[in-house]
Amino acid sequence: MNQRVPVVEKITKANDRIAALNRALLDRHGVFGLNLLASPGAGKTSLIEATLPRLRGRLRVGVVEGDLATSLDAERAAAAGAPAVQITTGGACHLDAAMVNDALPRLPLAELDLLIVENVGNLICPASFALGTHADVLVASTPEGDDKPYKYPSMYGRVGALVINKIDLLPHLDFDMERFRRGVAVLSPDAIAFPLSCRTGEGLDAWIAWLMARTRQTRGAG
Amino acid sequence: MNQRVPVVEKITKANDRIAALNRALLDRHGVFGLNLLASPGAGKTSLIEATLPRLRGRLRVGVVEGDLATSLDAERAAAAGAPAVQITTGGACHLDAAMVNDALPRLPLAELDLLIVENVGNLICPASFALGTHADVLVASTPEGDDKPYKYPSMYGRVGALVINKIDLLPHLDFDMERFRRGVAVLSPDAIAFPLSCRTGEGLDAWIAWLMARTRQTRGAG
Repeated sequence: MNQRVPVVEKITKANDRIAALNRALLDRHGVFGLNLLASPGAGKTSLIEATLPRLRGRLRVGVVEGDLATSLDAERAAAAGAPAVQITTGGACHLDAAMVNDALPRLPLAELDLLIVENVGNLICPASFALGTHADVLVASTPEGDDKPYKYPSMYGRVGALVINKIDLLPHLDFDMERFRRGVAVLSPDAIAFPLSCRTGEGLDAWIAWLMARTRQTRGAG
Repeated sequence: MNQRVPVVEKITKANDRIAALNRALLDRHGVFGLNLLASPGAGKTSLIEATLPRLRGRLRVGVVEGDLATSLDAERAAAAGAPAVQITTGGACHLDAAMVNDALPRLPLAELDLLIVENVGNLICPASFALGTHADVLVASTPEGDDKPYKYPSMYGRVGALVINKIDLLPHLDFDMERFRRGVAVLSPDAIAFPLSCRTGEGLDAWIAWLMARTRQTRGAG
């Protein structure tokens, strides 16, 4: 067990180097890259499905899907009209920069404005692996409960934007939005929050506007 | 990165040895040990809170709570009337047998019939670490979606019993119970399933009956 810490450090450093390569590649093509994080079933793929048609004719979007097994999610993204690449981690609990580096050449980067990388469903391990994207977006969902920021501080402490999905279920849950937001505010005071429902469409406009603004910012700086 | 596999193997083997010690300790005291697994917010702690009062006067229950941070869950278990020990992993994504081995002497094992170990909320990493308990119980929840068995096969392939929580939300979700159960049946054909709602109490009787029967079995064999 003594070897563990140095091995982890070596892995993290190697990962950071490859993440920098990914960032340079995205910047060269003027693509805004987004790392979509969440626990299983919070609605990452549903958010992509709800987002793609609303960006049609406005932004050109590519998708990288990370999963332990199956290509169900890439099929859903492709059906929603985006070029999509599936990474199957074969059991690994997070995406790393090298996996994304392998996936990027399989997308038409020169023809994209926005790249959404859907990470593996996990509120812990993906927080330790930068991918080279420009923003981390965490998808929380109301049925998970209002205590999650307190219980998963490493993940909630690194988010730039927070989607609070499944607000249509709020009348049926004991979810205290104020308690939830207080937890987020302590860990990520600058995080912007988007309460929404992928199912009903409520709240999606603000999320779409943010995506458009951030993508234009990145392209302007590139 | 080449070192990774042997290090992981060494860790797993060491873990298995300590898990065997835990099992022997539980057996010596005639305690039925249960490893409660789930993604974040599926309802592990709510299940414990719903279970404890229903077992009062029938089984003596102790709880080990595993979390990245905070002792919120141990406080909830203690408030529900069980001796509870909190393991704070400090960021680690799963419980391992050594953590449980440290926790066991802090519980009055000689006075317990049933020990519930609530693992860290994570559908991936905890599947690789035996704790020495007698049964793995996975808590799924309907808002997570019916595709989870297909996407998390290592976890769904190791369950002895499956709690399907939050069935009170089914009228408000697109959750296909048949698709979900087909996925479970392929991976864990012998798993027994308990659809229930910790919020309304529906379905809890069958779960309680199973806990009583399995605990008596273990005590009978001890």
